[in-house]
Amino acid sequence: MGDKPIWEQIGSSFVQHYYQVFDTDRTQLGSIYTGESCLTWEGQQFQGKAAIVEKLCSLPFTKIAHSITAQDHQPTPDSCILSMVVGQLKADDDQVLGFHQTFLLKSYSNAWVCTNEIFRLALHNL
Amino acid sequence: MGDKPIWEQIGSSFVQHYYQVFDTDRTQLGSIYTGESCLTWEGQQFQGKAAIVEKLCSLPFTKIAHSITAQDHQPTPDSCILSMVVGQLKADDDQVLGFHQTFLLKSYSNAWVCTNEIFRLALHNL
Repeated sequence: MGDKPIWEQIGSSFVQHYYQVFDTDRTQLGSIYTGESCLTWEGQQFQGKAAIVEKLCSLPFTKIAHSITAQDHQPTPDSCILSMVVGQLKADDDQVLGFHQTFLLKSYSNAWVCTNEIFRLALHNL
Repeated sequence: MGDKPIWEQIGSSFVQHYYQVFDTDRTQLGSIYTGESCLTWEGQQFQGKAAIVEKLCSLPFTKIAHSITAQDHQPTPDSCILSMVVGQLKADDDQVLGFHQTFLLKSYSNAWVCTNEIFRLALHNL
């Protein structure tokens, strides 16, 4: 990773960590959020670490596996990192579904946290 | 729109404007960017209004039509607006393709500009 810009290293490390924790024990995701973080999950809005983790833990599946197709990272004018992930997920025995997820990361006291997160399944009226 | 939060009004107005201009005359998109804006288009990075508009204008199609499936907007800690769009597009006579696009909007001198933009087609190895 030595040649990659720092925002790409931080963004891709975050993304790897997020899905690893999500897929093994999503009750442990609280440490990446703050009390002000915003999550929009399939159009539903949640704010704050507690509300976000409660939502993620209440999702109606036991097993989940994410597979990343593409991830892009950018630095922002306010020294944040913007990340967009396109991928596929398999929940329990359901069919594989495409998803898209956006994260905004910010550094507080030398730790990167997720201040904003948006998730959508790739469902279109074809 | 009266009951919607201000960030949602601004975000959805921007998104509507962006695709309207993109689909009619994308040479006119320059006014939404600054010299520092970042675009990542299918993994390729561009910085600055001129480079971004040159890229968008060089895309190899004559006619393009976007259709939005879902859009989500959030306020960020630095008074920006984060928007994620999921939709479908039809370029010339090609098949309809899914896409995802993320925008970060910031207010400079009372005008909202796009500081960060990421675009990906929804192509997976199924």
